[in-house]
Amino acid sequence: LTLRDTPKCETCFRFIVLITDPSLMRVFSGIQPTGVPHLGNYLGALESWVSLQNEYSSVLYSIVDLHSITQPQDPQLLRESILDMAASLLACGIDPARSILFQQSVVSEHAELCWILGCLTSMPRLRHLPQWKMKSKQKNEGSVGLYTYPVLQAADILLYKATHVPVGEDQVQHLELAQDLARIFNNKYGELFPEPRALLSSTRKVKSLRDPSCKMSKSDPQKFATIFLTDTPEDIVFKIRRAVTDFTSEVTFDPEGRPGVSNLVSLHAAVSGLTVEDVLIQARGLDTGKYKSLVSEAVVQRLQPIRLEIQRLRADRGHLLSVLAEGGAKARSLAAPVMTEVRKRVGFS
Amino acid sequence: LTLRDTPKCETCFRFIVLITDPSLMRVFSGIQPTGVPHLGNYLGALESWVSLQNEYSSVLYSIVDLHSITQPQDPQLLRESILDMAASLLACGIDPARSILFQQSVVSEHAELCWILGCLTSMPRLRHLPQWKMKSKQKNEGSVGLYTYPVLQAADILLYKATHVPVGEDQVQHLELAQDLARIFNNKYGELFPEPRALLSSTRKVKSLRDPSCKMSKSDPQKFATIFLTDTPEDIVFKIRRAVTDFTSEVTFDPEGRPGVSNLVSLHAAVSGLTVEDVLIQARGLDTGKYKSLVSEAVVQRLQPIRLEIQRLRADRGHLLSVLAEGGAKARSLAAPVMTEVRKRVGFS
Repeated sequence: LTLRDTPKCETCFRFIVLITDPSLMRVFSGIQPTGVPHLGNYLGALESWVSLQNEYSSVLYSIVDLHSITQPQDPQLLRESILDMAASLLACGIDPARSILFQQSVVSEHAELCWILGCLTSMPRLRHLPQWKMKSKQKNEGSVGLYTYPVLQAADILLYKATHVPVGEDQVQHLELAQDLARIFNNKYGELFPEPRALLSSTRKVKSLRDPSCKMSKSDPQKFATIFLTDTPEDIVFKIRRAVTDFTSEVTFDPEGRPGVSNLVSLHAAVSGLTVEDVLIQARGLDTGKYKSLVSEAVVQRLQPIRLEIQRLRADRGHLLSVLAEGGAKARSLAAPVMTEVRKRVGFS
Repeated sequence: LTLRDTPKCETCFRFIVLITDPSLMRVFSGIQPTGVPHLGNYLGALESWVSLQNEYSSVLYSIVDLHSITQPQDPQLLRESILDMAASLLACGIDPARSILFQQSVVSEHAELCWILGCLTSMPRLRHLPQWKMKSKQKNEGSVGLYTYPVLQAADILLYKATHVPVGEDQVQHLELAQDLARIFNNKYGELFPEPRALLSSTRKVKSLRDPSCKMSKSDPQKFATIFLTDTPEDIVFKIRRAVTDFTSEVTFDPEGRPGVSNLVSLHAAVSGLTVEDVLIQARGLDTGKYKSLVSEAVVQRLQPIRLEIQRLRADRGHLLSVLAEGGAKARSLAAPVMTEVRKRVGFS
């Protein structure tokens, strides 16, 4: 990557780095190895990851295992979850020929750059970031890893000089830290990192089937609230049949007044690629009970090939390991020269 | 390293790892690349580093550049300071044939293990450790790197399964964190790290020549307070002549009542290898002015060969780089299998 510098900003007097050449754009995103993703992950993020492969010439997706251990993990489960996530991403359409799919911990430069960026981050800067505020409260006091989580995220992004980062709204503040750290590093050691920009993912938020006031979540304590990509058609039919609706039988779209039915409508629209209006036309004359069959059918149709592909890939552990190994090698070959340059700039070599 | 487990401790019920075979003992210590060390560094630590080479079969000394950037550093100066420190350590008698002398940042496993150990360290655990308390106060709020400094120290030590760590009193609490983290890791992931023990370095503390209530220090704002290993005989004579004493002309040893003269006496004893008593016999009949010449002579005699060797080594940058490269390769070859095992235990592979 080379950057084209424009004149300085008239307000803050620093150089504005403008990247206008699409061949210089690079997308980075990470996902924790939580095992098989659910429908909310798929529609909220992974689907757009797949399409970004066609829009950008350089795309990296990382299974961020270093991040996952900021919460206690069972090693055996973690090991399996990494492979399950790899299988799931491939099954969803992540194509190793068009994007670099790799496991974070195999590229030692992530931790190295994290240390260096940590020396440029003031302690209070992290105190109010979402990761710490949300997760440390549950256990009162979190680990150093949890507190410094956003610094590692910044390292993930800057290590590849990524220019674009697909993020959910909850990650915007973390991306701002990465932008700040790019600026702080560049000011101190000379222009090196582009300031990464947010690609805000679709605001499509799939809700819990059992409590449509919450997001669909892997860790939902309620049974049948979450549809996983590996759910069988029977699982899906069963869960959607038990989805919370209300006492009105007609199907309408009113997320405030009728969150349960509206969640099914958005879900239906999302998996079928139709608009909410088109979906409502299809639902005309059906009561919510009958409509649920229609939704199930659409979800099954969308997830069935993914489920079968996950199944196929999971059975071929060797293939998964080799895809990750190849991705890891590619990621390392991008990270190594950047880190070499960082070491020089800092004065280590 | 294999460890011999003894039965569980009767109080806390955990296994006590006893290492009794000297061939399984390993010493690790680190020093920040502050440039050329001063006489206080030499007599307080480096001298004992040299003798540890004969007492232990496996010894590692690291120039800890990753630690140094927890305070702002000028890159060009840092680069030179690393080589100056290497030259100084070699000149003092660190022998690359008997110990592994290396630069911390060339072994990526330090930062990697640091991240993992950070996930096992609670945030409040670090709040009262000396590094943060001392250095963050000066600037009100320090960096994440400064706060997590002791976690990196723990990684430095555990990465080599070091069993013994020469430390000054001010580092005892940091070593306790390394011991805790060894224990926490072993409990969670199975016995892997020995608990490192402190080798308390001699309590010989060289004081500032200008204010004997303070330790001799590189950053002493007072001129002529500090003798560096590269000081010429003239520098040394001049600085000792200006050393603070008092209005009694006789030479006695009374650190409380007469700190200035007593500092010269201990210094004299330390550089000449004599006891304080023997030094006082030599000083009998001399006033403090004349005695200073005797002290200067002894210091010059001790430092002259070291100074000349530093000079010689500094002129041969290529040699210094190759010594560090060789040490780095050896350190990596010890660190890599430990880190591979850590990755397995944690569930990354």
